[in-house]
Amino acid sequence: MDKINEDIQAYLEDIINEERDVARNGRIPDYIEKVDNEDHGAISIAITGLNGKTIQAGDDEGRFSLQSISKVISLAVALMDQGKEKVFQHVGKEPTGDPYHSLMGMEVKKDGGPLNPMVNAGAIAVVGQIKGETVDERFQKVLALTRKLAGNPEIDYNREVYQYEDQDLNRALFYYNRSGGYVEGDLLDVLPIYWKMTSIEVTIKELARIGAVIANNGKDIDSDEQIIPSDVVTVLKTFMVTCGMYDQSGAFAIDVGIPAKSGISGGIVAAVPGRMGIAVLGPDLNKHNNSIAGVRLLRKMSERWNLSLFNQ
Amino acid sequence: MDKINEDIQAYLEDIINEERDVARNGRIPDYIEKVDNEDHGAISIAITGLNGKTIQAGDDEGRFSLQSISKVISLAVALMDQGKEKVFQHVGKEPTGDPYHSLMGMEVKKDGGPLNPMVNAGAIAVVGQIKGETVDERFQKVLALTRKLAGNPEIDYNREVYQYEDQDLNRALFYYNRSGGYVEGDLLDVLPIYWKMTSIEVTIKELARIGAVIANNGKDIDSDEQIIPSDVVTVLKTFMVTCGMYDQSGAFAIDVGIPAKSGISGGIVAAVPGRMGIAVLGPDLNKHNNSIAGVRLLRKMSERWNLSLFNQ
Amino acid sequence: MDKINEDIQAYLEDIINEERDVARNGRIPDYIEKVDNEDHGAISIAITGLNGKTIQAGDDEGRFSLQSISKVISLAVALMDQGKEKVFQHVGKEPTGDPYHSLMGMEVKKDGGPLNPMVNAGAIAVVGQIKGETVDERFQKVLALTRKLAGNPEIDYNREVYQYEDQDLNRALFYYNRSGGYVEGDLLDVLPIYWKMTSIEVTIKELARIGAVIANNGKDIDSDEQIIPSDVVTVLKTFMVTCGMYDQSGAFAIDVGIPAKSGISGGIVAAVPGRMGIAVLGPDLNKHNNSIAGVRLLRKMSERWNLSLFNQ
Amino acid sequence: MDKINEDIQAYLEDIINEERDVARNGRIPDYIEKVDNEDHGAISIAITGLNGKTIQAGDDEGRFSLQSISKVISLAVALMDQGKEKVFQHVGKEPTGDPYHSLMGMEVKKDGGPLNPMVNAGAIAVVGQIKGETVDERFQKVLALTRKLAGNPEIDYNREVYQYEDQDLNRALFYYNRSGGYVEGDLLDVLPIYWKMTSIEVTIKELARIGAVIANNGKDIDSDEQIIPSDVVTVLKTFMVTCGMYDQSGAFAIDVGIPAKSGISGGIVAAVPGRMGIAVLGPDLNKHNNSIAGVRLLRKMSERWNLSLFNQ
Repeated sequence: MDKINEDIQAYLEDIINEERDVARNGRIPDYIEKVDNEDHGAISIAITGLNGKTIQAGDDEGRFSLQSISKVISLAVALMDQGKEKVFQHVGKEPTGDPYHSLMGMEVKKDGGPLNPMVNAGAIAVVGQIKGETVDERFQKVLALTRKLAGNPEIDYNREVYQYEDQDLNRALFYYNRSGGYVEGDLLDVLPIYWKMTSIEVTIKELARIGAVIANNGKDIDSDEQIIPSDVVTVLKTFMVTCGMYDQSGAFAIDVGIPAKSGISGGIVAAVPGRMGIAVLGPDLNKHNNSIAGVRLLRKMSERWNLSLFNQ
Repeated sequence: MDKINEDIQAYLEDIINEERDVARNGRIPDYIEKVDNEDHGAISIAITGLNGKTIQAGDDEGRFSLQSISKVISLAVALMDQGKEKVFQHVGKEPTGDPYHSLMGMEVKKDGGPLNPMVNAGAIAVVGQIKGETVDERFQKVLALTRKLAGNPEIDYNREVYQYEDQDLNRALFYYNRSGGYVEGDLLDVLPIYWKMTSIEVTIKELARIGAVIANNGKDIDSDEQIIPSDVVTVLKTFMVTCGMYDQSGAFAIDVGIPAKSGISGGIVAAVPGRMGIAVLGPDLNKHNNSIAGVRLLRKMSERWNLSLFNQ
Repeated sequence: MDKINEDIQAYLEDIINEERDVARNGRIPDYIEKVDNEDHGAISIAITGLNGKTIQAGDDEGRFSLQSISKVISLAVALMDQGKEKVFQHVGKEPTGDPYHSLMGMEVKKDGGPLNPMVNAGAIAVVGQIKGETVDERFQKVLALTRKLAGNPEIDYNREVYQYEDQDLNRALFYYNRSGGYVEGDLLDVLPIYWKMTSIEVTIKELARIGAVIANNGKDIDSDEQIIPSDVVTVLKTFMVTCGMYDQSGAFAIDVGIPAKSGISGGIVAAVPGRMGIAVLGPDLNKHNNSIAGVRLLRKMSERWNLSLFNQ
Repeated sequence: MDKINEDIQAYLEDIINEERDVARNGRIPDYIEKVDNEDHGAISIAITGLNGKTIQAGDDEGRFSLQSISKVISLAVALMDQGKEKVFQHVGKEPTGDPYHSLMGMEVKKDGGPLNPMVNAGAIAVVGQIKGETVDERFQKVLALTRKLAGNPEIDYNREVYQYEDQDLNRALFYYNRSGGYVEGDLLDVLPIYWKMTSIEVTIKELARIGAVIANNGKDIDSDEQIIPSDVVTVLKTFMVTCGMYDQSGAFAIDVGIPAKSGISGGIVAAVPGRMGIAVLGPDLNKHNNSIAGVRLLRKMSERWNLSLFNQ
């Protein structure tokens, strides 16, 4: 490891140690605590450059589920399958100040569809746009893309976590969507894909690599293969800025300014265009359901290395 | 004029002609129709490079009021006066899917403050943060900054438009804010500043110059004077992306991807970081209260010259 | 027929003729138009005294589905099965200004349950409280009570209407309820009962008899059998006043003042305590989904005979 | 005092003693604690029969402000001044599940007016309908009616309480109403009447007498003078049932069933048609802003003496 990387490594260790205490000032969702990511005190950072090199700091090498982070990947699959025009007939593009499971916004608006692909209702509508003969074929497309982005063909979903994803609020959102024509088919044609994809597990380094490929406009950082078309990546990055951090997205854009997506497992993927992918993991969530430590670590790195998209 | 500029000029004329018809497919607010911007069929574009050169196309050389575009300038003044920490104790950072005059979001959230500085409630809270002994002194700071950004010391507000800005919904928002402690003082200490600043009139070229200084990170494009500190400009650009186009901001980010702010007079200012300022003017508004032609013209230019922040 | 009844009959014919035109100034829901109540111009009144005598006027002798009117009967069954305490752990008692299918109110309130037994979410929760080994056994209890109240053991549900009741918004409400613990079991343990009971068909005279038994505190008007306990009838009458006419309940209480429940088939049942049951039928619905003519006819009768509960 | 009255007196003392503890399980609004009703542990009942006789129990003989109870009296004045048609062009008739100061309902509905005369927005619109040359003349009409109903020409408003009523949320509601045309004139033409009328102070016996006149269809219980026309009293009683207890009105209708109106001073007036007026006072409020003890005492009396309107 060269001097620069050593310095970065040391800096990452420092900020992780600084955040270790506040990282526990929130809560972990029950089922995440129970079946996902055994080491719940874990706090970790990985950075993957577009040259493929990775620096990792912190005490965690375990796997954790993607949860809402998978919404970015399923959106990519749907856009590749159907094109923007068709997909955006089923889901909107607007951020919302409401929590991720909210139905209210849909009811108040006159047109009534799910507001964007990053809230649960929208992600369910997006999953409904993935092409494939069977449920399994459609899920395999999301899993295959995750494996390619992460650079690990062994990645899979956690069967135990999957059991817990089967929640009634998602069923309500499916039928609410279907009543407005934003999703078609049977509940079991759509929701199992959603539940499985949120249960896909990665390591912190794999998650950083996913961010790096997005930061590289969809080109693989090792093989240069265009995994996701560049115009689709533009859409992903935009939603990661406007809606990636639930109802904290606006504050995150101001304070950090990096396209990012969080999950309730405590992970966050971030893509600094043309520069690097970053993954952070911190245990407890704040009231917006984002990892407390994760948000703070990204803010520190953004300020130190001037990573904000709005400060270029 | 050199060949490149001639080509750009010709292209701008072309797209203006393409949009002339759809530009009238909406409505103009009554009082704008009545007292602002006499030539209501006007559709126009101006582009100002960071080198100070301007290209203008379309049939309008008249003045029109800034309306909500002024919220960007007053936010700059407040941030320069009080700093981020203090200002953001009075206004949030979150985009909202609700219309600009909405109170509902404040009521539903537990903390209850105005959601961001680009909705009316938030802009009123921001105006309350501007320092100055008298109402006039505080308004003069907004006017002075507008003049500097636009490069014209003669710019003023339109007295007739100002009369029409005195609207009850803004009064309701003032008191709603004050009941939660998000604004202090008397209604007449705050709202006249808001009403006057929205009545400030500019030409399309002046508006493009405002965009150019923002695109230049706050440095004057002629004198290199740092008119607005760079970190304040970062905040402005971020809000222009997440909340600049009312409840069409998310779609605009996806489809255009340029920091921009619209006003109900039909004008839109856009700042392409490191490259140029753009102003567009189109008469009729869509259901989100953005200029129909303005949004379409910006989308065409963004696609032709690859201007999206999310496509770099 | 004696003189008094002749006068009443003539008066009813008169007001029906007066309302025939406005009765068509709204709309009929598509599936009601298609499969329910063939004679859609029908406008009719029936009045049943507590002595069992019935006066009927208007051109309709056909059957029409109970729709939301059945919510009063299922609430009676649930209260008889489980008692007030248990039932009101699953559904609230508060009127709401929102439409009958609304979810918003549940989301905004902190406790989050369905607001009252007369909105769809609440009626679904109430159906979930009916005791019985099988779905069919539970539905048969609602049907049996309807037959007893109406005085016709042949009453049944319309199979074709039933097919159309299977709607996604109700499925969404079921799961939304279940996610909060307000209903248990499988969707198909609950919703078929709801869909079938709304499809039960009655004649205008049978509906008036239902109203008369409620007006008689639950005692059968012929046999004196206590079909529904008096304290349960008190609950029914209260909800009929506060929530019986969807988001027009408040206006109906002021203008008419009789406990009543409407359905989107155009029927309304009303119970004038100690005096009579009234049923009205009118084709088109107003924006609150109440029969236009039905509301107007009840108002005329209330004013002529001083029937308002609040004017005694 | 005869035997029956002695028994009632004893019963009232009993239930007051039973409720003394739970009466303190809530909170008293700050300014009520500070400037209104010195003896804040006070819990009291008064019953006034239509024959003019009053029975009082409990430890309080002090004065307390009417607060929202005054909305019933101002509605009576407005209806007498303008008639139902005009008044109900400015305020709706629908109950709402929202808290009394809520604006959300108005924003979500398409027509947008205040929902009913018992929420603050509606009461302000109603006050705007009272006729009179000056603010003071209009307020004096409300005060005069209060004095007549209470049978005490010395009743007045509490100047100190009045100072505290001047709250920004009411100012916001005034302008929100005015922006929709539901109120006209200047803020200071309307709100001082509202603030003064809520500050009018009565004793528990005077409040019971107000209830008795309403229960007597508007006729004075001593002089037989028709103080309020009977059809106006019908409107008052209806709103007292559908909207009189804030967002607990529906539960109160089910559990108690008596037309009643509460105030945040802890007082509640109830009118049992044709039988009696009841006033209760209890210190702490529940989460719906109704007196904890007050609601419980009324429920006990309603059950014991079968007072529910829905159980006759």
